[in-house]
Amino acid sequence: MKHFIVGPVETYKEVQNIYKQPYLYFRSNEFGEFVKETLNRLSSLIGNNDKNSLLYLTMSGTGAMEATIENCVTPKDKVLVINGGTFGQRFCELLKFHNIPFDSINLKWNESLTKEHLEYYENKGYTTLFVNLHETSTGQLYDVKLLSEFTKRNNMFFIVDAISTFLADTYDMSKYNIDVTIISSQKGLCLSPGLSFVSLSKRIIDKIYKTTPSSLYFDFKDYLKNIERGQTPYTPAVFIMYELKAILDLIDNSGGLEKWLSNIKEKCQYFREQICKIGLNIPTTYNLSNTMTPVICDTVNANELVKYLRDHYEICVNPCGGNRANYMFRVSHIGNTTKKDIDILIDKIQKTIEVLAKRN
Amino acid sequence: MKHFIVGPVETYKEVQNIYKQPYLYFRSNEFGEFVKETLNRLSSLIGNNDKNSLLYLTMSGTGAMEATIENCVTPKDKVLVINGGTFGQRFCELLKFHNIPFDSINLKWNESLTKEHLEYYENKGYTTLFVNLHETSTGQLYDVKLLSEFTKRNNMFFIVDAISTFLADTYDMSKYNIDVTIISSQKGLCLSPGLSFVSLSKRIIDKIYKTTPSSLYFDFKDYLKNIERGQTPYTPAVFIMYELKAILDLIDNSGGLEKWLSNIKEKCQYFREQICKIGLNIPTTYNLSNTMTPVICDTVNANELVKYLRDHYEICVNPCGGNRANYMFRVSHIGNTTKKDIDILIDKIQKTIEVLAKRN
Repeated sequence: MKHFIVGPVETYKEVQNIYKQPYLYFRSNEFGEFVKETLNRLSSLIGNNDKNSLLYLTMSGTGAMEATIENCVTPKDKVLVINGGTFGQRFCELLKFHNIPFDSINLKWNESLTKEHLEYYENKGYTTLFVNLHETSTGQLYDVKLLSEFTKRNNMFFIVDAISTFLADTYDMSKYNIDVTIISSQKGLCLSPGLSFVSLSKRIIDKIYKTTPSSLYFDFKDYLKNIERGQTPYTPAVFIMYELKAILDLIDNSGGLEKWLSNIKEKCQYFREQICKIGLNIPTTYNLSNTMTPVICDTVNANELVKYLRDHYEICVNPCGGNRANYMFRVSHIGNTTKKDIDILIDKIQKTIEVLAKRN
Repeated sequence: MKHFIVGPVETYKEVQNIYKQPYLYFRSNEFGEFVKETLNRLSSLIGNNDKNSLLYLTMSGTGAMEATIENCVTPKDKVLVINGGTFGQRFCELLKFHNIPFDSINLKWNESLTKEHLEYYENKGYTTLFVNLHETSTGQLYDVKLLSEFTKRNNMFFIVDAISTFLADTYDMSKYNIDVTIISSQKGLCLSPGLSFVSLSKRIIDKIYKTTPSSLYFDFKDYLKNIERGQTPYTPAVFIMYELKAILDLIDNSGGLEKWLSNIKEKCQYFREQICKIGLNIPTTYNLSNTMTPVICDTVNANELVKYLRDHYEICVNPCGGNRANYMFRVSHIGNTTKKDIDILIDKIQKTIEVLAKRN
């Protein structure tokens, strides 16, 4: 099976190999030092140079989204959510569950977020903005500068789920005055799923110390205290921390962050050229991430195409949810895939369309 | 580094190898079927033959303990906790945080839980018993029959953290009318840390459907609905599910559950014989699990011994917490270790004691 899904992505040999290697006792000082060093390296890729500001949590991305809500906002806040799909909706549901007052800017799937959407919400006392910077369900990459200026102008906290944009698009937490960055192991980091990371600004840490979350497992105060020694309150997904070191080494050895990102961009652009050549379309009404390409497929049923690719060619791409499943699918460009893999993918998509077209 | 710690334990080649093998898209029906089949096999080892009664959660054991509290008890309950150490205390702290009325039977570290401890709590309206069946911090394995009869007599729910006893000692959920069994990937299952499992009785599932947890990530109702298709509400630690299949295959191929348990028992007994031969002692006032042996070491400082073993011989055993760290350490018998490893361990412990004794 070859995976072109957004996560878990195809992992690298260097990451797989850590399972054959020795590991430290996770409560030892040596492991703590190893964690601190590794998290510092990750922090610098995120663009947060504050010490002890990056927490690692043994939970999925949604767990980290909820933990962020429980620690960073209270019923006294007034939250604004950019809701452009499944993951924006998830923020809304989590906020609702926790009785946090919020409004949301609800976008149609192919509607680009613009300055005009935000105008209505200027100077209305909103305290915090939540955004999934890359809304994975549609592929829209929002304009971080636009949102950053909006939050700055309105003196708001700026909370970013960067789960499916980090390490595929450029990202800089301090440049854009972001207060919380949420990322997950199995996306751009190309690691096993099960570990999430939350990077925090100084001013949100101050707020966290005044907030009581609904569950102790989510209590960032505990994680903040422990991370000073590179520790966690509870047994973490130890081996994924070793995977993290392996991928950071690989990024360094491959020429560094810029080179890593440009490789993904190259794969992404190559795929887009090739997929258009065979007559399929890419949404043009909104900005896309280099993480993945949503492909519009109106000659055959997209969901059937996804299944056919999997069943006949052992190729896995992401279906879309809801009704859009019938005319759109999504192809990821993160993970251990090559241009040659893309050539095969394009060929098999073309063959599948031929087969399915004949069926109809 | 050779690990004799309670978890993460030394993993098996068969488990490590899954990282080199292909994997399914986790939202596919095929993956769902694979999960259902794998969980059914695990369920049968736990002794729960109800369908769709075993949830898998991407979180540490403490996360699963808290999730269990949030889903299975409410402020209308009256809980009793067996508190014989760090993990009993953790249940107490979690219950307190969630405003669940509870009392605890607090045991001294070397005090055996007996019928007499329970007498006071008979017919007093307690609704639920929480116990860490093997209190990992001291090594006491409580008498499950005693507790089962107590809960049955008092018409209580019986909630068992079996994290560090399952797959080392015999365990049977239905035989002892246990309502919730909590286990974790990195202990007896010998898998990577990051995944926990909660096995549920029919009557506790009824209660769960009437309960609202404090966090959505912990909502068992969502997990119960999804598990019917072998799915989870959020991206799970997919690869540990493959590890689970690998270890279940290994247990089967090694002669089945009884044989697996008897191998651990053999390692355990062998270690205890050998450690006594070199003049160290094992607590005799309470019943021990086959998972690990607490070793009393009063000739040299136990904490220094633990550090020396690690620094000079790359051997890792568990220190104790608090003041007990000075005169006790703990050696695990689960994981990929052999009698030969135990011989080396014993030899190095002896050498370390000689060195440390000379220092003093």
